[in-house]
Amino acid sequence: MKYPQAIEHLVRLFTKLPGVGRRTAERYAFDVLIRWKEAEVSEFQEVLAQVKNSITTCGQCGVFTDAAECPICLDRQRRQDLLCVVASAREVYSLENTKEYRGQYHVLQGLLSPLDGRGEEILGLAKLIRRIEENDVKEVVVALDSTLEGDATALFIKQKLEDYPVKVSRLAFGIPLGSALEYVDGGTLARAFVGRAIF
Amino acid sequence: MKYPQAIEHLVRLFTKLPGVGRRTAERYAFDVLIRWKEAEVSEFQEVLAQVKNSITTCGQCGVFTDAAECPICLDRQRRQDLLCVVASAREVYSLENTKEYRGQYHVLQGLLSPLDGRGEEILGLAKLIRRIEENDVKEVVVALDSTLEGDATALFIKQKLEDYPVKVSRLAFGIPLGSALEYVDGGTLARAFVGRAIF
Repeated sequence: MKYPQAIEHLVRLFTKLPGVGRRTAERYAFDVLIRWKEAEVSEFQEVLAQVKNSITTCGQCGVFTDAAECPICLDRQRRQDLLCVVASAREVYSLENTKEYRGQYHVLQGLLSPLDGRGEEILGLAKLIRRIEENDVKEVVVALDSTLEGDATALFIKQKLEDYPVKVSRLAFGIPLGSALEYVDGGTLARAFVGRAIF
Repeated sequence: MKYPQAIEHLVRLFTKLPGVGRRTAERYAFDVLIRWKEAEVSEFQEVLAQVKNSITTCGQCGVFTDAAECPICLDRQRRQDLLCVVASAREVYSLENTKEYRGQYHVLQGLLSPLDGRGEEILGLAKLIRRIEENDVKEVVVALDSTLEGDATALFIKQKLEDYPVKVSRLAFGIPLGSALEYVDGGTLARAFVGRAIF
Protein backbone atom coordinates (compact mmCIF):
# COMPACT_ATOMS: atom_id res chain seq x y z
CA MET A 1 0.00 0.00 0.00
CA LYS A 2 1.35 3.43 -0.91
CA TYR A 3 1.36 6.40 1.46
CA PRO A 4 -1.22 9.09 0.68
CA GLN A 5 0.30 11.56 -1.76
CA ALA A 6 1.06 14.40 0.69
CA ILE A 7 2.87 12.04 3.08
CA GLU A 8 4.94 10.60 0.24
CA HIS A 9 5.81 14.12 -0.92
CA LEU A 10 6.88 15.20 2.56
CA VAL A 11 9.00 12.06 2.93
CA ARG A 12 10.73 12.87 -0.37
CA LEU A 13 11.50 16.41 0.76
CA PHE A 14 12.92 15.25 4.09
CA THR A 15 15.34 12.95 2.24
CA LYS A 16 16.92 16.08 0.75
CA LEU A 17 18.34 16.93 4.17
CA PRO A 18 21.95 15.83 4.69
CA GLY A 19 22.32 12.28 5.99
CA VAL A 20 18.59 11.58 5.92
CA GLY A 21 17.62 8.33 4.21
CA ARG A 22 14.21 7.01 3.32
CA ARG A 23 13.47 5.45 6.73
CA THR A 24 14.50 8.49 8.74
CA ALA A 25 12.46 10.70 6.39
CA GLU A 26 9.42 8.49 6.97
CA ARG A 27 9.95 8.78 10.71
CA TYR A 28 10.11 12.59 10.46
CA ALA A 29 7.05 12.83 8.19
CA PHE A 30 4.89 10.69 10.45
CA ASP A 31 6.09 12.59 13.47
CA VAL A 32 4.96 15.85 11.86
CA LEU A 33 1.66 14.26 10.86
CA ILE A 34 0.86 12.58 14.16
CA ARG A 35 2.63 14.42 16.95
CA TRP A 36 3.12 18.05 15.83
CA LYS A 37 0.42 20.57 16.61
CA GLU A 38 -1.15 22.67 13.84
CA ALA A 39 0.55 25.73 15.31
CA GLU A 40 3.97 24.11 15.20
CA VAL A 41 3.53 23.18 11.56
CA SER A 42 2.50 26.74 10.63
CA GLU A 43 5.46 28.04 12.60
CA PHE A 44 7.71 25.68 10.63
CA GLN A 45 6.27 26.96 7.34
CA GLU A 46 6.77 30.59 8.32
CA VAL A 47 10.32 30.09 9.50
CA LEU A 48 11.24 28.32 6.28
CA ALA A 49 10.11 31.38 4.34
CA GLN A 50 11.85 33.73 6.78
CA VAL A 51 15.13 31.92 6.72
CA LYS A 52 15.36 32.30 2.96
CA ASN A 53 14.02 35.87 2.90
CA SER A 54 15.59 37.50 5.92
CA ILE A 55 19.05 35.94 5.94
CA THR A 56 21.62 37.28 3.52
CA THR A 57 25.39 37.21 3.45
CA CYS A 58 27.30 40.41 4.13
CA GLY A 59 28.46 41.96 0.84
CA GLN A 60 31.74 42.84 2.49
CA CYS A 61 32.86 39.69 4.33
CA GLY A 62 30.26 37.02 3.46
CA VAL A 63 29.06 36.33 7.02
CA PHE A 64 25.33 35.53 7.50
CA THR A 65 23.25 38.45 8.68
CA ASP A 66 19.62 39.47 9.00
CA ALA A 67 20.43 43.17 9.09
CA ALA A 68 21.68 45.63 6.47
CA GLU A 69 25.25 45.44 7.72
CA CYS A 70 26.74 42.42 9.41
CA PRO A 71 27.47 42.33 13.16
CA ILE A 72 31.16 41.69 12.57
CA CYS A 73 31.82 44.47 10.05
CA LEU A 74 29.83 46.85 12.28
CA ASP A 75 31.83 46.08 15.41
CA ARG A 76 34.46 48.84 15.59
CA GLN A 77 36.14 47.12 18.55
CA ARG A 78 37.41 44.39 16.24
CA ARG A 79 40.80 44.71 14.60
CA GLN A 80 40.57 45.89 11.01
CA ASP A 81 44.07 44.72 10.09
CA LEU A 82 43.48 41.03 10.79
CA LEU A 83 41.56 38.87 8.30
CA CYS A 84 40.50 35.26 8.75
CA VAL A 85 39.72 33.22 5.61
CA VAL A 86 37.06 30.50 6.00
CA ALA A 87 35.42 28.16 3.52
CA SER A 88 31.80 28.80 4.51
CA ALA A 89 29.76 31.31 6.47
CA ARG A 90 28.73 28.62 8.91
CA GLU A 91 32.29 28.13 10.18
CA VAL A 92 32.40 31.70 11.44
CA TYR A 93 30.15 30.64 14.35
CA SER A 94 32.55 27.92 15.54
CA LEU A 95 35.49 30.30 15.35
CA GLU A 96 33.62 33.11 17.12
CA ASN A 97 32.66 30.76 19.93
CA THR A 98 36.33 30.16 20.75
CA LYS A 99 36.56 33.90 21.64
CA GLU A 100 40.21 33.75 20.49
CA TYR A 101 39.80 35.92 17.43
CA ARG A 102 38.77 39.56 17.19
CA GLY A 103 39.44 40.48 13.56
CA GLN A 104 37.54 40.45 10.29
CA TYR A 105 36.45 37.47 8.20
CA HIS A 106 36.54 36.64 4.54
CA VAL A 107 34.18 33.84 3.48
CA LEU A 108 35.15 31.94 0.33
CA GLN A 109 32.44 30.45 -1.87
CA GLY A 110 34.05 27.04 -1.46
CA LEU A 111 37.40 25.28 -1.77
CA LEU A 112 39.43 24.61 -4.90
CA SER A 113 38.55 21.27 -6.45
CA PRO A 114 39.65 20.63 -10.02
CA LEU A 115 37.75 17.31 -10.00
CA ASP A 116 34.45 19.05 -9.23
CA GLY A 117 35.29 21.88 -11.63
CA ARG A 118 35.72 24.43 -8.85
CA GLY A 119 38.58 26.70 -9.82
CA GLU A 120 40.15 29.92 -8.66
CA GLU A 121 37.05 32.01 -9.45
CA ILE A 122 35.06 30.71 -6.47
CA LEU A 123 37.67 32.03 -4.06
CA GLY A 124 36.98 35.67 -4.94
CA LEU A 125 40.59 36.56 -4.26
CA ALA A 126 40.35 39.94 -6.04
CA LYS A 127 37.97 41.04 -3.29
CA LEU A 128 40.23 39.63 -0.58
CA ILE A 129 43.19 41.54 -2.04
CA ARG A 130 41.16 44.74 -2.27
CA ARG A 131 40.23 44.42 1.41
CA ILE A 132 43.87 43.76 2.33
CA GLU A 133 44.94 46.93 0.52
CA GLU A 134 42.11 49.14 1.74
CA ASN A 135 42.36 48.15 5.39
CA ASP A 136 46.12 47.84 5.47
CA VAL A 137 45.78 44.25 6.69
CA LYS A 138 48.85 42.92 8.51
CA GLU A 139 47.94 39.23 8.76
CA VAL A 140 45.68 36.79 6.95
CA VAL A 141 44.80 33.70 9.03
CA VAL A 142 43.84 30.81 6.77
CA ALA A 143 41.28 28.71 8.70
CA LEU A 144 40.57 25.93 6.23
CA ASP A 145 39.93 22.21 6.58
CA SER A 146 42.86 19.87 6.83
CA THR A 147 41.87 18.03 3.66
CA LEU A 148 43.27 17.79 0.17
CA GLU A 149 41.01 20.62 -0.98
CA GLY A 150 41.66 22.73 2.10
CA ASP A 151 45.42 22.31 1.76
CA ALA A 152 45.39 23.12 -1.96
CA THR A 153 43.30 26.24 -1.36
CA ALA A 154 45.50 27.38 1.54
CA LEU A 155 48.63 26.98 -0.57
CA PHE A 156 47.05 28.80 -3.49
CA ILE A 157 46.05 31.75 -1.30
CA LYS A 158 49.54 31.87 0.22
CA GLN A 159 51.10 32.04 -3.26
CA LYS A 160 48.67 34.71 -4.46
CA LEU A 161 49.48 36.89 -1.46
CA GLU A 162 53.26 36.59 -1.78
CA ASP A 163 53.58 39.97 -3.48
CA TYR A 164 51.66 41.81 -0.78
CA PRO A 165 53.11 43.07 2.52
CA VAL A 166 50.98 40.74 4.62
CA LYS A 167 51.74 37.75 6.83
CA VAL A 168 49.84 34.59 5.88
CA SER A 169 49.34 32.13 8.74
CA ARG A 170 47.34 28.95 9.08
CA LEU A 171 45.62 27.37 12.09
CA ALA A 172 48.00 25.04 13.97
CA PHE A 173 47.93 21.30 13.34
CA GLY A 174 48.44 18.91 16.22
CA ILE A 175 46.85 16.62 18.73
CA PRO A 176 43.20 17.41 19.48
CA LEU A 177 42.60 18.28 23.13
CA GLY A 178 41.51 15.37 25.29
CA SER A 179 42.72 12.65 22.94
CA ALA A 180 45.07 9.81 23.86
CA LEU A 181 48.25 9.52 21.78
CA GLU A 182 47.56 5.90 20.95
CA TYR A 183 44.45 6.91 18.98
CA VAL A 184 46.04 9.79 17.10
CA ASP A 185 46.98 8.96 13.49
CA GLY A 186 50.59 9.05 12.31
CA GLY A 187 50.21 12.11 10.09
CA THR A 188 48.81 14.18 12.94
CA LEU A 189 51.54 12.98 15.30
CA ALA A 190 54.22 13.90 12.76
CA ARG A 191 52.75 17.41 12.41
CA ALA A 192 52.59 17.71 16.19
CA PHE A 193 56.31 16.90 16.37
CA VAL A 194 57.20 19.46 13.72
CA GLY A 195 55.10 22.07 15.44
CA ARG A 196 56.30 21.31 18.98
CA ALA A 197 56.87 24.29 21.23
CA ILE A 198 58.74 25.00 24.46
CA PHE A 199 56.32 25.21 27.38
CA MET B 1 28.16 34.88 18.33
CA LYS B 2 24.51 33.94 18.08
CA TYR B 3 22.86 32.76 14.89
CA PRO B 4 20.56 35.27 13.21
CA GLN B 5 17.07 34.91 14.65
CA ALA B 6 15.45 33.01 11.77
CA ILE B 7 18.25 30.43 11.69
CA GLU B 8 18.01 29.91 15.45
CA HIS B 9 14.23 29.49 15.16
CA LEU B 10 14.54 26.93 12.36
CA VAL B 11 17.16 25.02 14.36
CA ARG B 12 14.78 24.92 17.33
CA LEU B 13 11.97 23.56 15.17
CA PHE B 14 14.16 20.86 13.65
CA THR B 15 15.06 19.62 17.15
CA LYS B 16 11.38 18.74 17.59
CA LEU B 17 11.82 15.90 15.10
CA PRO B 18 12.44 12.49 16.68
CA GLY B 19 16.09 11.74 17.36
CA VAL B 20 17.28 15.15 16.18
CA GLY B 21 19.65 16.90 18.59
CA ARG B 22 21.00 20.41 18.47
CA ARG B 23 23.93 19.63 16.16
CA THR B 24 21.88 17.69 13.63
CA ALA B 25 19.26 20.45 13.65
CA GLU B 26 21.97 23.01 12.92
CA ARG B 27 23.19 20.87 10.05
CA TYR B 28 19.66 20.67 8.62
CA ALA B 29 18.99 24.40 9.03
CA PHE B 30 22.20 25.43 7.30
CA ASP B 31 21.58 22.92 4.54
CA VAL B 32 18.17 24.51 3.91
CA LEU B 33 19.70 27.97 4.03
CA ILE B 34 22.71 27.29 1.85
CA ARG B 35 21.96 24.40 -0.46
CA TRP B 36 18.17 24.29 -0.98
CA LYS B 37 16.70 26.21 -3.85
CA GLU B 38 13.92 28.77 -3.25
CA ALA B 39 11.53 26.45 -5.09
CA GLU B 40 12.36 23.52 -2.85
CA VAL B 41 11.75 25.57 0.26
CA SER B 42 8.35 26.75 -1.04
CA GLU B 43 7.52 23.16 -1.93
CA PHE B 44 8.43 22.14 1.62
CA GLN B 45 6.16 24.86 3.06
CA GLU B 46 3.24 23.80 0.86
CA VAL B 47 3.58 20.12 1.64
CA LEU B 48 3.68 20.82 5.38
CA ALA B 49 0.32 22.56 5.06
CA GLN B 50 -1.05 19.81 2.83
CA VAL B 51 -0.01 16.99 5.06
CA LYS B 52 -1.95 18.45 7.96
CA ASN B 53 -4.94 19.52 5.85
CA SER B 54 -5.40 16.68 3.42
CA ILE B 55 -4.57 13.65 5.55
CA THR B 56 -7.22 12.39 7.93
CA THR B 57 -7.80 9.08 9.62
CA CYS B 58 -10.70 6.92 8.48
CA GLY B 59 -13.64 7.31 10.88
CA GLN B 60 -14.29 3.61 10.58
CA CYS B 61 -10.90 1.93 10.99
CA GLY B 62 -8.42 4.73 11.75
CA VAL B 63 -6.14 4.23 8.74
CA PHE B 64 -4.61 7.37 7.13
CA THR B 65 -6.38 8.56 4.03
CA ASP B 66 -6.55 11.61 1.79
CA ALA B 67 -9.97 10.67 0.42
CA ALA B 68 -13.46 10.65 1.92
CA GLU B 69 -13.38 6.92 2.53
CA CYS B 70 -10.22 4.97 3.16
CA PRO B 71 -8.72 2.62 0.56
CA ILE B 72 -8.99 -0.37 2.87
CA CYS B 73 -12.63 0.05 3.89
CA LEU B 74 -13.52 0.71 0.23
CA ASP B 75 -11.87 -2.44 -1.05
CA ARG B 76 -14.69 -4.99 -1.32
CA GLN B 77 -12.22 -7.75 -2.17
CA ARG B 78 -10.93 -7.70 1.38
CA ARG B 79 -12.44 -10.00 3.98
CA GLN B 80 -14.94 -8.24 6.21
CA ASP B 81 -14.85 -10.90 8.94
CA LEU B 82 -11.17 -10.52 9.76
CA LEU B 83 -9.95 -7.60 11.88
CA CYS B 84 -6.35 -6.69 12.69
CA VAL B 85 -5.70 -4.48 15.73
CA VAL B 86 -2.66 -2.18 15.52
CA ALA B 87 -1.31 0.51 17.83
CA SER B 88 -0.87 3.24 15.23
CA ALA B 89 -1.95 4.06 11.70
CA ARG B 90 1.62 4.01 10.52
CA GLU B 91 2.00 0.29 11.23
CA VAL B 92 -0.71 -0.53 8.70
CA TYR B 93 1.80 0.21 5.91
CA SER B 94 4.34 -2.34 7.18
CA LEU B 95 1.64 -4.99 7.54
CA GLU B 96 0.17 -4.25 4.10
CA ASN B 97 3.59 -4.55 2.51
CA THR B 98 3.88 -8.17 3.67
CA LYS B 99 0.88 -8.94 1.41
CA GLU B 100 -0.08 -11.65 3.92
CA TYR B 101 -3.22 -10.01 5.20
CA ARG B 102 -6.41 -9.15 3.35
CA GLY B 103 -8.84 -8.15 6.09
CA GLN B 104 -9.85 -4.97 7.90
CA TYR B 105 -7.87 -2.92 10.42
CA HIS B 106 -8.66 -1.32 13.73
CA VAL B 107 -6.22 1.38 14.81
CA LEU B 108 -5.97 2.02 18.56
CA GLN B 109 -5.08 5.49 19.84
CA GLY B 110 -2.12 4.01 21.72
CA LEU B 111 -1.24 1.25 24.14
CA LEU B 112 -2.26 0.88 27.77
CA SER B 113 0.23 2.49 30.10
CA PRO B 114 -0.83 3.14 33.68
CA LEU B 115 2.45 4.95 34.33
CA ASP B 116 1.78 7.49 31.56
CA GLY B 117 -1.87 7.71 32.55
CA ARG B 118 -3.10 5.97 29.42
CA GLY B 119 -6.01 3.76 30.38
CA GLU B 120 -8.68 1.70 28.68
CA GLU B 121 -10.37 4.74 27.08
CA ILE B 122 -7.64 5.22 24.47
CA LEU B 123 -8.25 1.75 23.06
CA GLY B 124 -11.74 2.61 21.83
CA LEU B 125 -12.89 -0.95 22.44
CA ALA B 126 -16.60 -0.08 22.24
CA LYS B 127 -16.07 0.75 18.59
CA LEU B 128 -14.07 -2.43 18.03
CA ILE B 129 -16.87 -4.49 19.58
CA ARG B 130 -19.49 -2.71 17.48
CA ARG B 131 -17.53 -3.52 14.32
CA ILE B 132 -17.17 -7.16 15.42
CA GLU B 133 -20.93 -7.45 15.90
CA GLU B 134 -21.95 -5.56 12.76
CA ASN B 135 -19.59 -7.38 10.42
CA ASP B 136 -19.91 -10.76 12.06
CA VAL B 137 -16.14 -10.86 12.56
CA LYS B 138 -14.69 -14.36 13.02
CA GLU B 139 -11.13 -13.50 14.04
CA VAL B 140 -9.32 -10.56 15.61
CA VAL B 141 -5.56 -10.58 14.96
CA VAL B 142 -3.74 -8.58 17.63
CA ALA B 143 -0.64 -7.08 15.96
CA LEU B 144 0.96 -5.19 18.85
CA ASP B 145 4.54 -4.63 19.94
CA SER B 146 6.26 -7.27 22.01
CA THR B 147 6.75 -4.87 24.91
CA LEU B 148 5.29 -4.55 28.39
CA GLU B 149 2.65 -2.14 27.09
CA GLY B 150 1.92 -4.19 23.99
CA ASP B 151 1.56 -7.37 26.02
CA ALA B 152 -0.71 -5.71 28.58
CA THR B 153 -2.90 -4.24 25.86
CA ALA B 154 -3.10 -7.55 23.98
CA LEU B 155 -4.14 -9.38 27.14
CA PHE B 156 -6.71 -6.73 27.98
CA ILE B 157 -8.27 -6.96 24.53
CA LYS B 158 -8.34 -10.76 24.75
CA GLN B 159 -10.20 -10.59 28.07
CA LYS B 160 -12.67 -8.00 26.82
CA LEU B 161 -13.53 -10.16 23.81
CA GLU B 162 -14.01 -13.37 25.78
CA ASP B 163 -17.78 -13.05 25.76
CA TYR B 164 -18.01 -12.64 22.00
CA PRO B 165 -18.02 -15.48 19.46
CA VAL B 166 -14.71 -14.41 17.93
CA LYS B 167 -11.23 -15.95 17.83
CA VAL B 168 -8.49 -13.69 19.18
CA SER B 169 -5.01 -14.42 17.79
CA ARG B 170 -1.69 -12.64 18.11
CA LEU B 171 1.25 -12.42 15.70
CA ALA B 172 3.73 -15.28 16.23
CA PHE B 173 6.83 -14.76 18.34
CA GLY B 174 10.09 -16.41 17.33
CA ILE B 175 13.44 -16.04 15.70
CA PRO B 176 13.66 -13.14 13.22
CA LEU B 177 14.49 -14.30 9.69
CA GLY B 178 18.17 -14.17 8.81
CA SER B 179 19.42 -14.09 12.39
CA ALA B 180 21.96 -16.48 13.92
CA LEU B 181 20.82 -18.36 17.03
CA GLU B 182 23.82 -17.21 19.03
CA TYR B 183 22.62 -13.61 18.81
CA VAL B 184 19.00 -14.30 19.68
CA ASP B 185 18.08 -13.46 23.28
CA GLY B 186 16.91 -16.13 25.70
CA GLY B 187 13.34 -14.92 25.94
CA THR B 188 12.88 -15.06 22.19
CA LEU B 189 14.46 -18.51 22.00
CA ALA B 190 12.14 -19.78 24.73
CA ARG B 191 9.10 -18.46 22.83
CA ALA B 192 10.43 -20.05 19.65
CA PHE B 193 10.61 -23.41 21.43
CA VAL B 194 7.09 -23.13 22.75
CA GLY B 195 5.80 -22.14 19.33
CA ARG B 196 7.78 -24.76 17.37
CA ALA B 197 5.95 -26.41 14.50
CA ILE B 198 6.30 -29.55 12.40
CA PHE B 199 7.72 -28.66 8.98
